[in-house]
Order: sequence, then structure tokens, then C-alpha cells
Amino acid sequence: MNQNTIERIRKFTADRDWDQFHSPANLAKAISVEAAELLECFLWSDTEYDVLAVKEELADVLVYCRNLLDKLGLDEDEIVNAKMDRNEAKYPVEKAKGNSTKYDRL
Amino acid sequence: MNQNTIERIRKFTADRDWDQFHSPANLAKAISVEAAELLECFLWSDTEYDVLAVKEELADVLVYCRNLLDKLGLDEDEIVNAKMDRNEAKYPVEKAKGNSTKYDRL
Amino acid sequence: MNQNTIERIRKFTADRDWDQFHSPANLAKAISVEAAELLECFLWSDTEYDVLAVKEELADVLVYCRNLLDKLGLDEDEIVNAKMDRNEAKYPVEKAKGNSTKYDRL
Amino acid sequence: MNQNTIERIRKFTADRDWDQFHSPANLAKAISVEAAELLECFLWSDTEYDVLAVKEELADVLVYCRNLLDKLGLDEDEIVNAKMDRNEAKYPVEKAKGNSTKYDRL
Repeated sequence: MNQNTIERIRKFTADRDWDQFHSPANLAKAISVEAAELLECFLWSDTEYDVLAVKEELADVLVYCRNLLDKLGLDEDEIVNAKMDRNEAKYPVEKAKGNSTKYDRL
Repeated sequence: MNQNTIERIRKFTADRDWDQFHSPANLAKAISVEAAELLECFLWSDTEYDVLAVKEELADVLVYCRNLLDKLGLDEDEIVNAKMDRNEAKYPVEKAKGNSTKYDRL
Repeated sequence: MNQNTIERIRKFTADRDWDQFHSPANLAKAISVEAAELLECFLWSDTEYDVLAVKEELADVLVYCRNLLDKLGLDEDEIVNAKMDRNEAKYPVEKAKGNSTKYDRL
Repeated sequence: MNQNTIERIRKFTADRDWDQFHSPANLAKAISVEAAELLECFLWSDTEYDVLAVKEELADVLVYCRNLLDKLGLDEDEIVNAKMDRNEAKYPVEKAKGNSTKYDRL
């Protein structure tokens, strides 16, 4: 997400005085709710879906993720790279290649 | 997310030949599953939580969102700005300020 | 669920003094978290799944639903029948037969 | 849930020829989607919520749980009691009393 988009999201929240509702717990709820709306796009069919609806619901997830990053003062690249370090260790290429098995059963 | 992080995620998937599992529907499921793991950090208390766990689960959500953006060839800033256009229209400042009511009841 | 099972769930909670954690909001979070664990059984494949894991996760959902019914003093048959009244009205057989379209687009 | 309610749910599905959409994976998605709608009732406040909406969303979760039990030929009391056996072993009263810590950290 570029800096302009991030600032737009921050201004949206600030203009509405919504920071008071954005506790980390509430934002975690919001991310789950929006993730489920995204899932609903694929509810009865994996292959026939409304791309416009998918875009909107995915955008909602991303906006609330940005709110949570901001709320906790987290750097997106830092936390994602830290997690990728762990993912790379948990899923070595030679074991995980072509295999969707969860790491604890690999 | 900067370009290096994005490329790292892409390489992680490519090296493991996991694109075959990354249908849009499966990625939507994965986002919901990880969002719920994030929610679980706040399950019995809104205020006492393990920040390290929050970072990891939020990172998982963000990684799968990136996978879905890639899978569908979407631009993150484009879809987020399109949604912000709609949010700004649905939640005019004068009505929404300090108010968490959903737009259809505003 | 028969009365013995219901009483067993109640005793489990009472013996551990867990009613203090069972606010309606927390139970709603718990239901979402367990529903996602159920969903995880089908994460990368719709057809290959561990039935034992499905049973356990579905049971978890049902136990927390029972906790929420109890917490709010609700009768399961009453709320389900009230919802079925609405479902039958929203999805008339002649329109909905063989069709998974959501009611607002039927 | 009493037998009449169960039969009503079965008839609802059969009359609409919806069994074709009710794969276990799809029902797991549906349970997650409805659980998130229940969660949404508590999104910005834990204490101010619309009881009618809670009833409807909880009923939706219960109906899809019943669909999944039927689809997999499971007995609700059997799977719940099997899970309660495990819960009682994982959360011994003397350790878990008044304590919401997850079993793997008890």
C-alpha cells in the first residue's frame, strides 16, 4: 500500500473520530467479519464469483489490517518478513514442495 | 508492503510449487482461518494479549491477502482507493462522526 | 442435544467458574474461532479431510452455541423455528429450487 | 434441537433440492460466514447489541451445523460428549478453575 493510500485511511478514521472504536480487539473482530464476507463470495461455488464483490471485501480486510497496524504501531514489512523467516524454516522446500500438508505433520 | 517483501512472498510460493493450492476460494478460506487466529488472541480478554502472537497472525492475514491480490491480478492501492471512495460516500463526516452505527442505519 | 448433554456442558462451565468469561461477545468470538478451525479441515481440499478433526471442531462450535443459548436464556427450538419461518418466506420453493442464489437476488 | 425442528430443516433443504450445494466443505464455509454475522452483532460494542439479530444469526449457525451433522451422518450428542471427554481431561478443575488460559499453557 503506498503512503497516499495509508494517509487516506488515517484521515478517514480521524475525520470521523472513530479511533475510539478501534481497540485492537475490535479491529480483530472487524478483520474476521470482513474476511467472512470475502469468503461468502465463494460460498456455494469455488469458481463462479463476482470479482467486484471480491475486490470490495478484500479491500475491507486490507483497510482494517492497516488500522490495526497503525493502532499497534507496527511496520507491515517488518512483521511480514519476520513471519516469512518462520514460514521458510517451518516449510523447507525439499519437504513442502507440491505438498499442502501443515508443518506439524510434514 | 514494499516490493522486496512482495517478491519474497511470491518466491516462497513458487519455490514450493504451491500455486496449485491457491485458488481464489482456497485463499479466501485461508484469510478467514488466519483472521480467526488473530481474533483468538483477544478471545477472553480485550486488553491482555500477546503482542508477538498478534504480529504473527496479522502477518499471516497480510500474506494470504497478497497471495489473493496476485492470484487475481489486482492492484492493492487501486482496490483500496475504490473502496475508500465508497466508504466516504456511505459515511459522510457530518453523520458518522463519533458514531459507530452501520451505514444502512445512519 | 439431549438434556444430559446440556447439563454436562453447564456443569463443565460451573465447575471451572468460567461463566465470568462467557459474555455474549466473548462467546460470539469463540464460535467464530471454532468455526474457522472447522473450516481449516477443508482448507486446501474440499474432499480430503480428517473426519475425526471435523467432529471435534463441529462439537466445539455446538458447545459454544449451547453456552450462548444458556447465557441469553434462549430456547434453541424457538429461535431456529423463528428463523425457519423467515427462511421459508425468503426462499419460496418455486424460486429457490435447485438454485443457490441469495434471497436478495432471487 | 427436537426431532420436529430437525425434520423441518431437512424438509426445507429437500424441497429446494439444495443437498447438491451442501458439501461438507461448503457447509463449513457457511458456518464460518454465519458465525461472523453473529460476531458482527458485537463488533463495536460488547454490551450494546440487538438481541433479535443475535437470535437470528445464532439460529443460522445452528441450522448449518444441523445440515453438516446430517451430511456426515453424525450424532450430535455423541460428538459433543466425545469432545467433552477431551475437554474435561485437558482442563482439570483444579488447574482451570477461574482461569481462561488455553490448555497448552496451563
